[in-house]
Amino acid sequence: MGKHIGKQTVILDNPPSIIATSSTVGPKEASGPLGEYFDVTTEDELWGEDTWEKAESKFVKETIKDVIDKAKLKSEDIQYIFAGDLLNQLTGTTFGIRDFNIPYFGVFGACSTMAESMSLGAMTVDGGFADYVLATTSSHFCGAEKQFRFPMELGTQRPLTAQWTVTGSGAVIIAKEGGGPYITSITTGRIVDLGISDPMNMGAAMAPAAADTIVQHFKDTGRSPDYYDLIITGDLAEYGQKLLIELAKKEGYNIGEILTDCGIEIYDPDSQDTHAGGSGCGCSASVFAGYLYKEIKKGRWNRVLFVATGAMLSPGSSQQGETIPGIAHAVAIERGISKRK
Amino acid sequence: MGKHIGKQTVILDNPPSIIATSSTVGPKEASGPLGEYFDVTTEDELWGEDTWEKAESKFVKETIKDVIDKAKLKSEDIQYIFAGDLLNQLTGTTFGIRDFNIPYFGVFGACSTMAESMSLGAMTVDGGFADYVLATTSSHFCGAEKQFRFPMELGTQRPLTAQWTVTGSGAVIIAKEGGGPYITSITTGRIVDLGISDPMNMGAAMAPAAADTIVQHFKDTGRSPDYYDLIITGDLAEYGQKLLIELAKKEGYNIGEILTDCGIEIYDPDSQDTHAGGSGCGCSASVFAGYLYKEIKKGRWNRVLFVATGAMLSPGSSQQGETIPGIAHAVAIERGISKRK
Repeated sequence: MGKHIGKQTVILDNPPSIIATSSTVGPKEASGPLGEYFDVTTEDELWGEDTWEKAESKFVKETIKDVIDKAKLKSEDIQYIFAGDLLNQLTGTTFGIRDFNIPYFGVFGACSTMAESMSLGAMTVDGGFADYVLATTSSHFCGAEKQFRFPMELGTQRPLTAQWTVTGSGAVIIAKEGGGPYITSITTGRIVDLGISDPMNMGAAMAPAAADTIVQHFKDTGRSPDYYDLIITGDLAEYGQKLLIELAKKEGYNIGEILTDCGIEIYDPDSQDTHAGGSGCGCSASVFAGYLYKEIKKGRWNRVLFVATGAMLSPGSSQQGETIPGIAHAVAIERGISKRK
Repeated sequence: MGKHIGKQTVILDNPPSIIATSSTVGPKEASGPLGEYFDVTTEDELWGEDTWEKAESKFVKETIKDVIDKAKLKSEDIQYIFAGDLLNQLTGTTFGIRDFNIPYFGVFGACSTMAESMSLGAMTVDGGFADYVLATTSSHFCGAEKQFRFPMELGTQRPLTAQWTVTGSGAVIIAKEGGGPYITSITTGRIVDLGISDPMNMGAAMAPAAADTIVQHFKDTGRSPDYYDLIITGDLAEYGQKLLIELAKKEGYNIGEILTDCGIEIYDPDSQDTHAGGSGCGCSASVFAGYLYKEIKKGRWNRVLFVATGAMLSPGSSQQGETIPGIAHAVAIERGISKRK
């Protein structure tokens, strides 16, 4: 059973364990600073498929296969899959999971989707509804550019605030029993919209949501930033991160020293020409599954607040003059059972 | 706490109560056979907004306001909102819920979304994570035609298997305590794809998923169709319903006599020119919130299996030659506590 505390947080009384993860990324991500951490890397962005969208579904499918193998389970053992992606109507996910026959809850939180799927997956296990749940998301640079921005063939120049959508997928299996790391509490974000309207500066649109959720997490739990070894946002990237630090400081929380961002970690902006950093559902998913999980298991960090962030726009909403609402979901992950309280 | 039984079903040990519903529909739905049941009806499909997409968000917003009022609550009392819609990146929902400050889980199951949001909402309450949860979805005929089919201005002719997307929204509040009706069990669907590829015949694409979920619900619970007074699918409409009856019969279940469909109930095909029937997330949502809930409360039915169905395609996936995967989620709703077992 869970327990709701404060405004937006639940404490999981029997914290579920993340028993396995897997990540698959494309060639650009494989040659970045975290390249060695990813489980599967592909030689090109099509991976033998004839469209980018089909390639994204293959990323989803192969990552799911691999994480189920790593957990030494069969697909019949998984009672629910929580998944979503950036493609219209979540087709990256639909066609990726089609052959697994696992009961499916489609979720969408733009680039916050991995934290959303992990939140719901953990609540489902803690609430007694399942023993094993799979949470996964994906994104694809070419598919996202085509859908959200400009045709790839145009070679359109990008401003320095723009981010680079990660081609990749990450998956985790959340189980009732296991040796950790554990999901111990969850702070669910609300829509925050401070009026940013530049779709080439999504970090700025998401930073207020990240600040809102992180500050609320501290208020709800009575914790201060020093409870955590690491706070890692999804894909605020360079400019969004600076804003987050300022916004949190205004609320009385100094988080700069333990803060990083999946979108900043995954690329080397100097040699990889990725401007502000990575983005996309697959960014926080692959960085969590590939890098964070393994380093938490090794003992580098004991308590991590994973805060994936989403910019909830569509090309249509921007063309109709709308601003960009942001959302951020926080999942507290702790290595040891003795550290759960 | 929940209890997982069989392959795809959970029994809710402390069945949450649906304490209020609200529905808002456009003029076509208001003049249909269920017109008198809907809570708010609009004179036109723009409702004072300058785009169909903004109108859809207004439907969402006003329906949420109304359901919170009906439950005699304030928005601060609602701990989570589970919601989604058909527009790319769920913008109908995002801009509709933006001002409420309620923690938000975006969900997507195409036209199955209402059953998905009610499933997750009920599990969240039963699992101890919340006292009050709001579940809602919407759709808009013009927005859906523009996005999925042809520009409205073309006046393209439609085949008789085509369905008419409902302009409307439905919302429910699911609470830990209340006088019912109760959500007593949930069977979550998986992706089912028998190879239908005609996006003008979505009933045929969704019927196998509906059959799969309904049959599995009976197998998991050990129930037969006569446990229920009514089985109501989301939007299989005329052709899909015939297929469902046949598919269930092949599995040994005769459901024809207690079966209906939200898409069949909402329009009069003879006088309203809606061909096979209604569709869209707003179809099952407004029919549940407007019609079913009120008739269950009155005692017309005691036990209803609400099975919303979704066709998980996008224009892009169809253009790339993909078939149409279907999904169906079943939610068992029972009027009395004494009837819960």
